[in-house]
Amino acid sequence: MARRVLVASRNAKKLGELRRILAEAGVEGLEIVGLDEVPPYEEAPETGATFEENALAKARDGAAATGLACVADDSGIAVDALNGMPGVLSARWSGRHGDDPANNDLLLGQLSDVPDERRGAQFVSACALVADGREVVEIGEWPGHIARKPAGDGGFGYDPLFVPDGGTVSAAELTPAEKDAASHRGRALRALLPALAALAE
Amino acid sequence: MARRVLVASRNAKKLGELRRILAEAGVEGLEIVGLDEVPPYEEAPETGATFEENALAKARDGAAATGLACVADDSGIAVDALNGMPGVLSARWSGRHGDDPANNDLLLGQLSDVPDERRGAQFVSACALVADGREVVEIGEWPGHIARKPAGDGGFGYDPLFVPDGGTVSAAELTPAEKDAASHRGRALRALLPALAALAE
Repeated sequence: MARRVLVASRNAKKLGELRRILAEAGVEGLEIVGLDEVPPYEEAPETGATFEENALAKARDGAAATGLACVADDSGIAVDALNGMPGVLSARWSGRHGDDPANNDLLLGQLSDVPDERRGAQFVSACALVADGREVVEIGEWPGHIARKPAGDGGFGYDPLFVPDGGTVSAAELTPAEKDAASHRGRALRALLPALAALAE
Repeated sequence: MARRVLVASRNAKKLGELRRILAEAGVEGLEIVGLDEVPPYEEAPETGATFEENALAKARDGAAATGLACVADDSGIAVDALNGMPGVLSARWSGRHGDDPANNDLLLGQLSDVPDERRGAQFVSACALVADGREVVEIGEWPGHIARKPAGDGGFGYDPLFVPDGGTVSAAELTPAEKDAASHRGRALRALLPALAALAE
């Protein structure tokens, strides 16, 4: 029987991403479930100062509440000209949680006078696994820069403004497979694979 | 005859502040004039990465264009939980230059989940003097924290949200004299007094 692993998220894309990464790596014997498939529990607010702190807090909460192994992530964009912000505030940069268009507009406005050579940015993801009293956190980074206008319909968050290094198109113009292969969360999740594979044994 | 010193600003409050500080220090023989009292010249955009860089660029421009000694400042607020931002982007944090209410609302929204112990902030001012081929830049800091709601009608910018260390009222609740005595710009301008006094001789 497969061992259930909770992903502390209601985002079907995140669940699918982890399932694909496990399948590609040949890790079998894990059943990935989301927050909608377990009894509800109180989720602590994300008030940590770092991605690691938030990811670990979410994974601890999920593991403690359900008794399952729990994977949680906290991700965002770190813009050089903003000293690494929006960072942990990426999803609520405009003051309204999850308002992607407002967050993108605000970031463009803040950077309107910032010259090309200072528009560097990194997507950053911390992915935590809490299981059997063990805790692991892995960080993935995806370097690039902030464009002068949005492009593309794919992805979410700041993807339309983020042009990964080595290319000329935005993250929102990549296919899901291209994004999985390169993205910050993909990198962090793949770094967790050994710990996940150990659960499956 | 008094020597004219250009303050690279159209803000009457800034001109008045420097005049008061000179008078209090007993520095005579300088006539402080603003940008509206000299022939217009092209002002470079403030695209520097630091307050020092912007203040110095403004003072160089003013001195080169007018032949006068020129004082310029760049000031803003550095919020700990935002890695020192808004910083040089303080006046356009909301994406609209000089929109104080929008900037204040945005900062409050961004910090809404940030706990009291991580709400520290500093007002920072860099004041530059360029005269007779000499350049001086002085930095003034005013430490405090960001309140949960605005208070007071005085001042400008982020004053209603900023509670200086050692007190319980916002910078917008101080009298102009109290603010002069404590503020970042007052501190930076007073640090420039020896260089200004030398001009008067």
